[in-house]
Amino acid sequence: MGDPERRRRRLLLVSNSTLHGGGYLEHCQEQIEKFLGENVRRVLFVPYALHDQNAYAKMAREKFESLGYGLDSIHESLDPRDTVREAEAIFIGGGNTFRLLKKLYDNDLIQPIRKRVLEDGIPYIGSSAGTNVATISISTTNDMPIVYPPSFLALGLVPFNINPHYLDPDVNSTHMGETREKRILQYHEEPNTLPVLGLREGSLLLVEGDKATLQGKTGARLFVRGKTPTEHEPGTDFSFLLNEDPEKL
Amino acid sequence: MGDPERRRRRLLLVSNSTLHGGGYLEHCQEQIEKFLGENVRRVLFVPYALHDQNAYAKMAREKFESLGYGLDSIHESLDPRDTVREAEAIFIGGGNTFRLLKKLYDNDLIQPIRKRVLEDGIPYIGSSAGTNVATISISTTNDMPIVYPPSFLALGLVPFNINPHYLDPDVNSTHMGETREKRILQYHEEPNTLPVLGLREGSLLLVEGDKATLQGKTGARLFVRGKTPTEHEPGTDFSFLLNEDPEKL
Repeated sequence: MGDPERRRRRLLLVSNSTLHGGGYLEHCQEQIEKFLGENVRRVLFVPYALHDQNAYAKMAREKFESLGYGLDSIHESLDPRDTVREAEAIFIGGGNTFRLLKKLYDNDLIQPIRKRVLEDGIPYIGSSAGTNVATISISTTNDMPIVYPPSFLALGLVPFNINPHYLDPDVNSTHMGETREKRILQYHEEPNTLPVLGLREGSLLLVEGDKATLQGKTGARLFVRGKTPTEHEPGTDFSFLLNEDPEKL
Repeated sequence: MGDPERRRRRLLLVSNSTLHGGGYLEHCQEQIEKFLGENVRRVLFVPYALHDQNAYAKMAREKFESLGYGLDSIHESLDPRDTVREAEAIFIGGGNTFRLLKKLYDNDLIQPIRKRVLEDGIPYIGSSAGTNVATISISTTNDMPIVYPPSFLALGLVPFNINPHYLDPDVNSTHMGETREKRILQYHEEPNTLPVLGLREGSLLLVEGDKATLQGKTGARLFVRGKTPTEHEPGTDFSFLLNEDPEKL
């Protein structure tokens, strides 16, 4: 808080791109339009989380064009770092978080994206894996570790973790694998671990500078190390999570 | 195949320690007794996958003592490497696979355990995370990456991957997170990835030298890169998975 660099930060962190019964980005398209506003004309898309980047870019392009925005996919750029430096807005889509983060490192894009978002204040939209990599680390992703990234540290656009696709325990299940809540509590058994915001499918977090607000319809569950998890309705002010000193939570 | 080192290998790789409605290791205790046989008197337990290692060792000790075996927990040893060198049998329990693998590396136990199992032929029992680390890598674990291990490469006691707690898709689900099958198929989108044996809860794989057999009651689903997944009944001979040359599959 109070760090002038972060005062310009603008993020829309979406739990999931597609909600059951709806189309791609349909459940959050109003928020996307409002978030990007009228100044943005083109969005830079990062399709690294899926294997077929051409097909992924095509789907994203169709959706953003239907909303009135042009879309460039970074996988078509000859100089991805330079493309980031010129981007008006960035959208990182979902898929496998390990694959996505590894490609961001491989292409040396962590610092350019951080600079563009935190210093220059261009809008950042993340969905699912793209929301995971916006946070401090990917340690609370649900994905399989199909490739080995050089670090679990991510873009660090916010100083906490998010668990997208947050899923409440199924009381009728006979499956013995850990529930999502139990997995997050295991994370908090480790020292110096940060708060985890469990964003249910259909939820989004809007961050503008030092202000964070829960959007969508399904609410969120917040896990803070050493405390009992808490439930939060849409509209909740989560600005306190942007405090860089977790002792003050 | 034909490597004399691996001819002595004896592994019992269990999908899950506790089956719905049963006690700890109850569903596989007959297989454990038969596997360890009458020559083994004490088992070396590795509780690294759970945070409370004392409680975990107590639970495992009670179970193994009820079956007539003594149990030493490696977390009580002053010299874990030396303790591995003297072990009659090793049991690595479940929990978080990343935490487990990191502690194996931190304590420099990868090579000592490999030597003891592959060269000296002592029995190895793995359950859940303990089954993941027995394979070539942890790239098909279901767990959250709560800590960063120095590699995803694991003990490599078998030259393929296992997905424990394998879960069939729930056709009634409205959740949009990837199904287990889809996650494994994403792994196989990466180059040079190995077969993945999806062991349902209640399934075990018995490996004796160059022979591997599916045990338990629930069957398994096999994923080979570029091929359609296949279903396998209990009793299936999976020895072909032990072939070190995936081209021959």
